[in-house]
Amino acid sequence: MEMEGIKLPKGFYYGSCLCHIKESSQKEDVALIVSNTMCDVGIVYTKNIVKADPLLLNQQTLQDGKAQAIIVNSGNANACAKNGMENAIKEQQAAACLLDLKPQDVIVASTGVIGAELPVEKIEKGLDQIHLNDSESAFEKAAIAIMTTDTKMKIAQASLQIGQQTVRIAGMCKGSGMIHPNMGTMLAFICTDAKIESSVLQKLVQKLTKKTFNRISVDGDTSTNDMCIVLANGQAMYDTIQEEEESLFEEALFTVMKSLAIQIASDGEGASRLLEIMVTHAKNEKQAEQLAMSVCSSSLFKAAMFGKDANWGRILCAMGYSGAVFDVNGVTVSFSSKEGEICVCQKGKGVSFDEEKATKILSADRVQVHIDLQEGNAEATCWGCDLTYDYVKINGDYRT
Amino acid sequence: MEMEGIKLPKGFYYGSCLCHIKESSQKEDVALIVSNTMCDVGIVYTKNIVKADPLLLNQQTLQDGKAQAIIVNSGNANACAKNGMENAIKEQQAAACLLDLKPQDVIVASTGVIGAELPVEKIEKGLDQIHLNDSESAFEKAAIAIMTTDTKMKIAQASLQIGQQTVRIAGMCKGSGMIHPNMGTMLAFICTDAKIESSVLQKLVQKLTKKTFNRISVDGDTSTNDMCIVLANGQAMYDTIQEEEESLFEEALFTVMKSLAIQIASDGEGASRLLEIMVTHAKNEKQAEQLAMSVCSSSLFKAAMFGKDANWGRILCAMGYSGAVFDVNGVTVSFSSKEGEICVCQKGKGVSFDEEKATKILSADRVQVHIDLQEGNAEATCWGCDLTYDYVKINGDYRT
Repeated sequence: MEMEGIKLPKGFYYGSCLCHIKESSQKEDVALIVSNTMCDVGIVYTKNIVKADPLLLNQQTLQDGKAQAIIVNSGNANACAKNGMENAIKEQQAAACLLDLKPQDVIVASTGVIGAELPVEKIEKGLDQIHLNDSESAFEKAAIAIMTTDTKMKIAQASLQIGQQTVRIAGMCKGSGMIHPNMGTMLAFICTDAKIESSVLQKLVQKLTKKTFNRISVDGDTSTNDMCIVLANGQAMYDTIQEEEESLFEEALFTVMKSLAIQIASDGEGASRLLEIMVTHAKNEKQAEQLAMSVCSSSLFKAAMFGKDANWGRILCAMGYSGAVFDVNGVTVSFSSKEGEICVCQKGKGVSFDEEKATKILSADRVQVHIDLQEGNAEATCWGCDLTYDYVKINGDYRT
Repeated sequence: MEMEGIKLPKGFYYGSCLCHIKESSQKEDVALIVSNTMCDVGIVYTKNIVKADPLLLNQQTLQDGKAQAIIVNSGNANACAKNGMENAIKEQQAAACLLDLKPQDVIVASTGVIGAELPVEKIEKGLDQIHLNDSESAFEKAAIAIMTTDTKMKIAQASLQIGQQTVRIAGMCKGSGMIHPNMGTMLAFICTDAKIESSVLQKLVQKLTKKTFNRISVDGDTSTNDMCIVLANGQAMYDTIQEEEESLFEEALFTVMKSLAIQIASDGEGASRLLEIMVTHAKNEKQAEQLAMSVCSSSLFKAAMFGKDANWGRILCAMGYSGAVFDVNGVTVSFSSKEGEICVCQKGKGVSFDEEKATKILSADRVQVHIDLQEGNAEATCWGCDLTYDYVKINGDYRT
């Protein structure tokens, strides 16, 4: 699998522009992703029952499993907002008009503050300046345009061989706060030139979301606007992907989705380090996941990680209220990073350890927490970040 | 109901001493609460499946519903700790020996860091200095000895008339971080001179815990050591409380438990203000409680409150992922405090409001959030606090 640089799938074009959706913003805030032919679509939405209007619109227009373009704006979530549906439709129509497509073939996504009315006329006007291009720089500029409090652009790529044909997958996403996906996910847009039916794609996206975007947490808050969309335009292949080739495609798609998910966790609002919670030797994957997600979401554990404090009692405490059943007397906990590895708890009890070494290990920008249950052979990994002063600063600041 | 000052129930004695359980601590860290006759007991424990050894010990010794004393240490939770059960038993025996009681009539409670071995010999030695007294100052000193990161002593009192007899209830509790009780509660110790059977008391404590300690959250973390204990020694009454008098006693006990719960929420680690989330016109109490608790636990909402930012979108978002079903199009949200009241959302959409006035209202040290569902006649109130830099500081600091 080649991973150097971005190798973009055929037949996709990207564009972005500055519409000043937030008055003060000087960053491009609207992006277009367009295929030159109709695409099959796989999509998952947030399970938050308060759904932003763009999601409700997509649920209507994507009933045929087909679309050809996505318009995304940052700076305003168009959720719980005055004239929300009307404005989502206007945004969709503006893109359709520019691209000469039917409105129902344009997907709409919004991210930003909840509750404010979307200044859609700014988008309608701004779209005039947009230039579509299939270059890597156009792709990256679009990835930057969808950012809100993100400090880093988030992109990922994979490719695979199916027979003689090279198939490419490239994705971008945004997400930094309000991150605790529940069956849905962040805003993630993935393009592929594979030829694959929307029913198969849909099944794969749902399956892989559970193991990627649903296994990250920044603050336990599940957003109203989460969506993960995969567009497949089939331009790299003559024939539709066969059942026996699906696992190859699945593996490559998993690579892209997992990379994007980890990038979100590692760029969590105010985060100073990525935390990787690995539960092994569990009875089943569900038990492992429940335990890992509970640790990954604990404010107390996250604050301890900010302080580089090997306060593993908070890990056992978070496991204890996770809802999963396990035997605490079998639990081993250790920390590792590029600075080494240290065991801090065996059979559910503390063991004496070198505090200085622990602090050094926890100072790395990527820290693994290994939780061994000694109950079975299942495992799960979840990703989160530490809780820092800056998280509070960013989110205490006026209407981020 | 008289509320001025502490009026203590008859026949209870209090003592405290400094054992240096944490080397550095200069605050008294062991407390005794003793009745001069045997008590009926009502008790609820944390539902965290990782339970500290003192709790497991109490579950054994309280099977008869009777006890006469409580020993509490702060500075060490004796949870997931080496020789945990052995040390809990030693602590129990040390108190029993001093008080000339049977060990099984002494309740043990511990609070502090998880995972460290309890230096029980320091407690055994320190108990020699203890003097028991039924004065208010002894009661208050005991309430201070059980504090950990608490900044304020937490006590509450109520009294009631049953026939010609005055019955008194007085409680103390500790709790500041790792606060998100689940069917159990914080460390709370409540004494009463009512004569009431442990089976009745148990039923009342369980019922009232759900409406008080289970409706507060500081950080979403449910502790391994939570307990709420009520001791009733019957010394104010000749006859056991009759069924028709129960509601009077229940009301007074509710007053004490609710006051203690609110004191915990308002002294949440690093908190700068108490948040009171009131959901009204709900279909049923469970729906109201689920929605209020979800808002009360949202890091994003709590950070907004720290920033005095009326970012009500985060309230709707937290309601949306609470698990409760409701119609977002019926929701009205307003904020109030001693500075006034302001409506920010009607029928699920933002309304324009005076931002300056909102900031002023949110600057008070006690802020109410009113969420009206317009679906029925049930309601619930939950209590929490804002998320501040100091929460992160306190919990990032080495092994708090």
